[in-house]
Amino acid sequence: MEAGLFTANNVWMMVCTALVFFMHTGFGFLEIGLTRQKNTINILFKNIFIITGGLLLYYAFGFNLMYPGFEEGSSGILKFAGFGIGAPENGMTPDYATGGYTWWTDFLFQGMFAATAATIVSGAVAERIKIGSFMIFVIFYVGLVYPIVGAWKWGGGFLDSWGFYDFAGSTLVHSVGGWAALVAIALLGSRIGKFGSDGKPKAIPGHSIPMATAGVLILWLGWFGFNGGSVLSADPALTSLVLVTTSLAAAAGGFGAFLLSTVLYKNMDLTMFLNGILGGLVGITAGADLMSPNEAVVIGFIAGLIIVLGVSFIDKLKLDDPVGAVTVHLICGIWGTLAVGILGDKAGFDQFLTQLFGVLIIGAFCVISSGIILGVLKAVMGLRVSKKEELEGLDIHEHGMDAYPDFRTNEH
Amino acid sequence: MEAGLFTANNVWMMVCTALVFFMHTGFGFLEIGLTRQKNTINILFKNIFIITGGLLLYYAFGFNLMYPGFEEGSSGILKFAGFGIGAPENGMTPDYATGGYTWWTDFLFQGMFAATAATIVSGAVAERIKIGSFMIFVIFYVGLVYPIVGAWKWGGGFLDSWGFYDFAGSTLVHSVGGWAALVAIALLGSRIGKFGSDGKPKAIPGHSIPMATAGVLILWLGWFGFNGGSVLSADPALTSLVLVTTSLAAAAGGFGAFLLSTVLYKNMDLTMFLNGILGGLVGITAGADLMSPNEAVVIGFIAGLIIVLGVSFIDKLKLDDPVGAVTVHLICGIWGTLAVGILGDKAGFDQFLTQLFGVLIIGAFCVISSGIILGVLKAVMGLRVSKKEELEGLDIHEHGMDAYPDFRTNEH
Amino acid sequence: MEAGLFTANNVWMMVCTALVFFMHTGFGFLEIGLTRQKNTINILFKNIFIITGGLLLYYAFGFNLMYPGFEEGSSGILKFAGFGIGAPENGMTPDYATGGYTWWTDFLFQGMFAATAATIVSGAVAERIKIGSFMIFVIFYVGLVYPIVGAWKWGGGFLDSWGFYDFAGSTLVHSVGGWAALVAIALLGSRIGKFGSDGKPKAIPGHSIPMATAGVLILWLGWFGFNGGSVLSADPALTSLVLVTTSLAAAAGGFGAFLLSTVLYKNMDLTMFLNGILGGLVGITAGADLMSPNEAVVIGFIAGLIIVLGVSFIDKLKLDDPVGAVTVHLICGIWGTLAVGILGDKAGFDQFLTQLFGVLIIGAFCVISSGIILGVLKAVMGLRVSKKEELEGLDIHEHGMDAYPDFRTNEH
Repeated sequence: MEAGLFTANNVWMMVCTALVFFMHTGFGFLEIGLTRQKNTINILFKNIFIITGGLLLYYAFGFNLMYPGFEEGSSGILKFAGFGIGAPENGMTPDYATGGYTWWTDFLFQGMFAATAATIVSGAVAERIKIGSFMIFVIFYVGLVYPIVGAWKWGGGFLDSWGFYDFAGSTLVHSVGGWAALVAIALLGSRIGKFGSDGKPKAIPGHSIPMATAGVLILWLGWFGFNGGSVLSADPALTSLVLVTTSLAAAAGGFGAFLLSTVLYKNMDLTMFLNGILGGLVGITAGADLMSPNEAVVIGFIAGLIIVLGVSFIDKLKLDDPVGAVTVHLICGIWGTLAVGILGDKAGFDQFLTQLFGVLIIGAFCVISSGIILGVLKAVMGLRVSKKEELEGLDIHEHGMDAYPDFRTNEH
Repeated sequence: MEAGLFTANNVWMMVCTALVFFMHTGFGFLEIGLTRQKNTINILFKNIFIITGGLLLYYAFGFNLMYPGFEEGSSGILKFAGFGIGAPENGMTPDYATGGYTWWTDFLFQGMFAATAATIVSGAVAERIKIGSFMIFVIFYVGLVYPIVGAWKWGGGFLDSWGFYDFAGSTLVHSVGGWAALVAIALLGSRIGKFGSDGKPKAIPGHSIPMATAGVLILWLGWFGFNGGSVLSADPALTSLVLVTTSLAAAAGGFGAFLLSTVLYKNMDLTMFLNGILGGLVGITAGADLMSPNEAVVIGFIAGLIIVLGVSFIDKLKLDDPVGAVTVHLICGIWGTLAVGILGDKAGFDQFLTQLFGVLIIGAFCVISSGIILGVLKAVMGLRVSKKEELEGLDIHEHGMDAYPDFRTNEH
Repeated sequence: MEAGLFTANNVWMMVCTALVFFMHTGFGFLEIGLTRQKNTINILFKNIFIITGGLLLYYAFGFNLMYPGFEEGSSGILKFAGFGIGAPENGMTPDYATGGYTWWTDFLFQGMFAATAATIVSGAVAERIKIGSFMIFVIFYVGLVYPIVGAWKWGGGFLDSWGFYDFAGSTLVHSVGGWAALVAIALLGSRIGKFGSDGKPKAIPGHSIPMATAGVLILWLGWFGFNGGSVLSADPALTSLVLVTTSLAAAAGGFGAFLLSTVLYKNMDLTMFLNGILGGLVGITAGADLMSPNEAVVIGFIAGLIIVLGVSFIDKLKLDDPVGAVTVHLICGIWGTLAVGILGDKAGFDQFLTQLFGVLIIGAFCVISSGIILGVLKAVMGLRVSKKEELEGLDIHEHGMDAYPDFRTNEH
């Protein structure tokens, strides 16, 4: 391979790595924007812990658990290639990964992905989880569950052999996070005041919609890298198609949610619009390289409708998900994964069944594993902060600080 | 063409696409930062609508209206190549666009541009326009006016044949938005309280200067892609020159505005400094590839002076432009377009006249078309919210929410 | 050299240039987040002045002072190649800089670096320095001191000949800023209220921890370009290694600071976590291309410990550094520079002594030159604002505006 092509490929993958890293800023903004001010430091702390800890865990063993190099004829379920990330002999040459990138780029791009699953959970459990319990959960979920599941498909494991398709992680990243979010909010219970004595859900408004909006725009930007980098090279035709399908699905998702929520609720709800964009992004992620622009619009638009219905459905289940993480990441993740069997280059009944099977088996594994981790934590050290702490805010109690200690309005 | 060069070109164009997309975050921050808190959700909603709707419109027909492939000998005024964005046979090969990028990249880069013109209007009409009327305006202006005007030059139409030059859109993007902004604020009238009973303008301060500052820095960053991508390849000499002229003009624009406003008004006005940067960026956009660094500094510096004088001039006309959009995008856009005839590789009297002609004909078309769209909207459904709504804020009335619902100061 | 490789190299360098530019947004967010609201406009003004002024100075003469092309046998201390940035004949060809980038890219990448040193000082002197004095200081420090010191190593001067190593500027950028910050806060004195009558330091909380957090994440992102671009080409092996060592050091730095501060102070301090990340980034910067991932983790982790101890040490010296700039940029910069002699490909006693020598000689020059500049300014026009101005805020007094003029809480 000519040096120019190898270099251009690797440049693109490094750019995508940077963009995926930037998504953590987007997640942070979105989560604190949609939650109350008194828990802002706590949420940011969790996010910073996830980014730094997630990367260190992936370096220590996650990468080698996710890409262990399954032998021919192995079960393709679990293998560990050892601690650390020493590069193979050809790791910096075009021979490695057919010239798409170097070993170091490979590690870092995948490492930036790894933390995402935990960040999804962070939003759902916000405002009531104990920071210590959450940190331990992250260590196990990012360190073990995420890479093990990832190995099944992206590491060349059994789901890959069976033809399961998940281009950039509608299931492997988003649903993996979403299932744990679902289990966690079921175990945690709802925030004080979320459901009235009549059982009806009550909106608990966040503290900065501008931050939430910026968060969504940054996430969309980051998705250029999340999906664009999942091509694993800078192949001009494929990367540019992926950016088009990704952006059109985002736009259509936003529109779908905007239209349905305006029809149903008669007000122009910005947060629905924003979550619709995220739903479209999650929805297109499994098949971003398989869809035509038209199909991407359809997938995104349906994801947008799902967002409006899903948020209301989660409420009806008396589950409390402050940022809509289960709807966005789990339900739209499932939709996107199944859509690979319905639309695009791989559509077909066999593929649909394979997709469904993948969704179910990964769902079962994630529910069980997160259930065990969180269940043990609940029994041993508790998951939830005290009522007093929840009412007064986690920032003061867990961190001894306020997010805006010197903020004044000009009326004073 | 070697695969490495084609790939590197396309990588650059995708990076630039991402940067132009990020500009919408910058516009959003700038607009809400410089306006009052009670209208924040409304402005963000408009911005999100523009990004998503603009991209979908461009996908549906805008791209084919802007790049219709005028036949030899046609008038070069209007042609429509059909709905949708099906790729031509050679769309993914170096044969398309001389190897600068693929068809998909082409669509997405141009699609990210399309929404910008409407965003410029959004800032000018902030705090008093009806959301429904604005959305309909956007559909016509982004969907029809912008691509039709674009076709005249970038689509190879009659202005292109006549030698009009506009590298990255001082006129085709910024003035197109700026003319409509001017028409819109004339039709809308000024915000309550903007002009005292003595007719003197009164400053209506925004609600977050840090957000406005971040917005300008993000816009500058985005301009790396806006101008850098307008090279339409990663040609090393040309792209790097464009980044240098762009950044120097931004810096000089900021300085020009800073110096003049300090001399005139004796205080170090951050918002003038910021608008000067934007003025420099808009000013260099028409000829960023034609200027030497020295010429870029001159163009930017003059644009900075124009900002200070222009903002005051708009005030004198009793026009109310909350974010200075007309001065930044229209006046500096005109300056930059004319500067192509005064400085740089194409300077000359003939070129100057051609530039002037282009400015006038596009200005006339934009004023007339935006006048018709907005005039009809004003007659049929009204442009302006009620006095009560304006006073109490568009957020509560149009969207039923507050931008910072749970924001507290620590004094409470 | 094939055109594809040259183009890919230059694309990477332009991307890195954009990322380094974006760091100024990060610095701005960090500095205002950690300081009081009443001084927000002032800090942003200083930052915008530094970016625009710094770039213009670098264009006017800084670049030619930093890369003057020392003749064989010259002292390698000082040479000036003339005003302006006219490109050499081969400046746009692969012959220039062995195909890593064009002359224009070279200028702009280095120009984006130039302003950083002054920005570091800006944070340390925040909330009490006179804006006029600071601007004059910036002109001399960015215009003269920074490029002269840079010439000694990166410009091929005497420190380069002696084997001093500083990959991306732990010393040449961060310590250069850090030394001046130290001198400045010694000359300025502490803010009113920082040290009680018992001499004990009192925390003066900032006004927006979310902004500070976003700032750190943006800085981390920017460091992809700061270190990644310092490879001066897109060499796949080296650039990707540098991104890995940079990110691992950042993560380990955060963790080190988090762990030590939690052990010492028993609360989970987000700002320590954040400053630990910055410490790790500064620490790895001198040898990011020389270290293995394991060594990067060690360097970063130690930098994180240094942060916690250093902040407390600066307090003990009765120096008032509102954002921890001296600890982050000076102390961790020294640590990173010395670490090149202890770990990695160049480790050895001779190298360690050379590194130490470089640190000392640059430190001496920076202390003396910043002492002279600031000392003269103090004598002639004063460095510090009046007590009244400090108490009431620099925003109102120096700029006549408030950062959040229309910000209300929903309780009103």
